[in-house]
Amino acid sequence: MAYPIFYFDQPATPGEMVTLSEDNSKHIAGVLRMSRGDTIQLANGKGLLRTAVIVDDHRKRCVVKIEKQAEVPPADTEIHIGISLLKNAGRFEWFLEKATEIGITHIHPLLCDRTEKQHFRQERMHGIMVSAMLQSQQTWLPVMPEPLRFSTFIESINSSITSRFVAHCEEDKKIELQDALRGRSGSLIILIGPEGDFSTGEISAAKQAGFIPVSLGDTRLRAETAALVAATLLKFSAEQTS
Amino acid sequence: MAYPIFYFDQPATPGEMVTLSEDNSKHIAGVLRMSRGDTIQLANGKGLLRTAVIVDDHRKRCVVKIEKQAEVPPADTEIHIGISLLKNAGRFEWFLEKATEIGITHIHPLLCDRTEKQHFRQERMHGIMVSAMLQSQQTWLPVMPEPLRFSTFIESINSSITSRFVAHCEEDKKIELQDALRGRSGSLIILIGPEGDFSTGEISAAKQAGFIPVSLGDTRLRAETAALVAATLLKFSAEQTS
Repeated sequence: MAYPIFYFDQPATPGEMVTLSEDNSKHIAGVLRMSRGDTIQLANGKGLLRTAVIVDDHRKRCVVKIEKQAEVPPADTEIHIGISLLKNAGRFEWFLEKATEIGITHIHPLLCDRTEKQHFRQERMHGIMVSAMLQSQQTWLPVMPEPLRFSTFIESINSSITSRFVAHCEEDKKIELQDALRGRSGSLIILIGPEGDFSTGEISAAKQAGFIPVSLGDTRLRAETAALVAATLLKFSAEQTS
Repeated sequence: MAYPIFYFDQPATPGEMVTLSEDNSKHIAGVLRMSRGDTIQLANGKGLLRTAVIVDDHRKRCVVKIEKQAEVPPADTEIHIGISLLKNAGRFEWFLEKATEIGITHIHPLLCDRTEKQHFRQERMHGIMVSAMLQSQQTWLPVMPEPLRFSTFIESINSSITSRFVAHCEEDKKIELQDALRGRSGSLIILIGPEGDFSTGEISAAKQAGFIPVSLGDTRLRAETAALVAATLLKFSAEQTS
């Protein structure tokens, strides 16, 4: 049976004793009623998975001894989603949860010409991704930098990401994303705009930077739905080719 | 420019005057500030799209005259999702919204051996689908019958649906859904279980009814995430073959 996994991102080596956070302690000793001698796992969100044994099942300051640790390699293929902050923060958070579950490796929050919301609660977003990572039994968190202006982001994209797509609603020569994905390998990125779409300037800047305009089916999707549909198609196309 | 679309499922023929609901009236006259002489569209969720002109822009009882009507044919390919009711109704509702946006044609709420929630608020669910249909500028609502017991449902599936999949978490000979979908045409169905998965009996009943066990990637997805990932893969595979 798999041991329950908790998030722990502090340094600690096998043999060492560590005190867990109040949240984790409550969950371990209170909710799961685990006690001294029971085994848990600790994931740091960066591929390090430690096995630990409970030494003190205190409900607020649970102490465990690290027994061993293993490195889980990152996903073969990087999948990047660049997405504008959304007016409705709940919809953005929902996307974060689902994208983490699916196994998206990089999420880039963007500030676009038509982005209405500028406030970004990094800590809250991090907590959502941690929960989703544990829920889906993964050991890697998506990498998520602070929000960047669209123009700054476009210039900073790693040149190793050669499969680049931008989803927008303007009239344009577009291909369906699932057709655009056929036969590709390596890292992938797609850009999703705010509720009011990317501006014409942003679309042409993306195209200049090698982004292919794509469409996502025959219905008009909300921004966060478009992002999740794109995330699903990218992820499963990457699984097929890897 | 496309005229704003509202939901109206009453009978009415071109030339006739109809009084809209208070909700629609408020939206038209209050939120959008439309007035006498302006044109709107009315969708009945079953492919009938009417064009109407505002005769009285009353904020509670807006009156419009039906000008003309057109039949929009249904999707070429039926996409059916059978999904257990979920403990957390919000997560089920979220799935309904997203599945409607994507263009899933049939949603079958199921009562499985391990379904915890039995209560189903049909009217509220219908409202969520109507909003999502209008938001995504479609004219067809998903068909969604009352919840059925799993065993009853399995026996009632139309024999014309030949591509049948069941997603479950037990040890089994499974193939990846996207591989199972390759080269198929015609109507599709996938079954998604409750939080605690389908029972062994349900899985074998499904297999006897011609359902192929599939897996949905390398992470463990929540029920509603699995349902949406499956919905996306089915929808975009159907678009490719149609």
